[in-house]
Amino acid sequence: MHVTSERLLDDGVVEREFTLGELPGILWTPASASAPVPLILLGPPPLGLREVYPRLAARARRSAADGFATATIELPGRGDRPRLPATEQALADLRGAMAAGEPVGDEIIDALILPLVDKAVPEWQAALDALLALPEIGGPVGYSGGVISIGTRLAVVEPRVSAAVLFAGSFIPRAVLEEARRVTIPLHVLLQWDDEGNDRQAALDLFDAFGSPEKTLHANMGGHTGVPQFAGDAAAQFLTRHLT
Amino acid sequence: MHVTSERLLDDGVVEREFTLGELPGILWTPASASAPVPLILLGPPPLGLREVYPRLAARARRSAADGFATATIELPGRGDRPRLPATEQALADLRGAMAAGEPVGDEIIDALILPLVDKAVPEWQAALDALLALPEIGGPVGYSGGVISIGTRLAVVEPRVSAAVLFAGSFIPRAVLEEARRVTIPLHVLLQWDDEGNDRQAALDLFDAFGSPEKTLHANMGGHTGVPQFAGDAAAQFLTRHLT
Repeated sequence: MHVTSERLLDDGVVEREFTLGELPGILWTPASASAPVPLILLGPPPLGLREVYPRLAARARRSAADGFATATIELPGRGDRPRLPATEQALADLRGAMAAGEPVGDEIIDALILPLVDKAVPEWQAALDALLALPEIGGPVGYSGGVISIGTRLAVVEPRVSAAVLFAGSFIPRAVLEEARRVTIPLHVLLQWDDEGNDRQAALDLFDAFGSPEKTLHANMGGHTGVPQFAGDAAAQFLTRHLT
Repeated sequence: MHVTSERLLDDGVVEREFTLGELPGILWTPASASAPVPLILLGPPPLGLREVYPRLAARARRSAADGFATATIELPGRGDRPRLPATEQALADLRGAMAAGEPVGDEIIDALILPLVDKAVPEWQAALDALLALPEIGGPVGYSGGVISIGTRLAVVEPRVSAAVLFAGSFIPRAVLEEARRVTIPLHVLLQWDDEGNDRQAALDLFDAFGSPEKTLHANMGGHTGVPQFAGDAAAQFLTRHLT
């Protein structure tokens, strides 16, 4: 893990950009912490870190105030990372289907999401290895993220993640529905009820499929990026309840 | 309004049993309040007040700690109130259908719920008149209740109710789905995902129908009476946010 820049934000949060091999990321830590703090892995929505930086930084600063370190890494094929030709093709197919008013077929969703999950999850695990090696970061570890299939797979395969906030709002392959039954950690799922780019029924089916004894669905009004302040507060309270 | 008994609970809450004509009810107020406090109307689930007293009193004590007065009244046909023959017949038909594994028809649901709503809502309004006349109770007024069709109708017809917590878990007549579109106050809807006595899809349809710009659905695991502590906390936070 190689820190490429470091700055102190005005609210006492240290922001470090880093690379892990070819993989860029950002780490936010509360400057005032005197002991190792719990960690939140902040999975970005399926856009580049630069595009979503303001949203992620706002959540990281809130988490720092709650006593957490927060880290994110660039998704495969986003930001300055090399594009994934199969994903780009699937995205073009998706847009074509939507523009034509056609239903989005399972094969498009599979081609769009599954390779992304296969590639991203080991990267999150490698980032976790590196982050937990830092003296200022302890545990436990939570995940809070925007591509729900990545969060689902990570919850299945990574025992160090002990609670997750998941955002319904991206397409869900059938295979992920099956994986969801093997998730057992506490989950807090956010659903924007009128999300124009979201299949509400698919999100409800996924919530139903999760095997976790403690799972909560919070559905709110507004579009994809319109998560109300109070819903963000509730998600932060969930992480505080499970990570401290 | 005639107070029939009054006692000070050990956490500084005054509990008064009262009658309003033939209608029995309970009022809880924080003993320490120095100015008129907001009011929560606590609609019971479709059982007698005596059966659900522990649950209601626990919520009222929590609300008193948050600075609210809380009041409840007996539902029509429950407790010592005269039974409603048509409702009793509908309940028998419902149990018969469920015991036989048959679907519960709309006509049974209508017969069970609509007369109850028609009778209960004016009673809640009369109770509100009497309660707001007390010097220790001011406003605003919230409703938090267990028969979702009563809460829905009250939200439509009673402008003094400014926010409501509703519990999905009773049958919903088609006519109430239509009324729901005219609700505009902030709503916080609780759904027990695996409630054995609840039609989950009907609850989701009702949530979808509400016209409120701010509405939140919190779905949690567990059966009918298994609302987790953190979900109760979130509902209390919703009322605090809207009534103070």
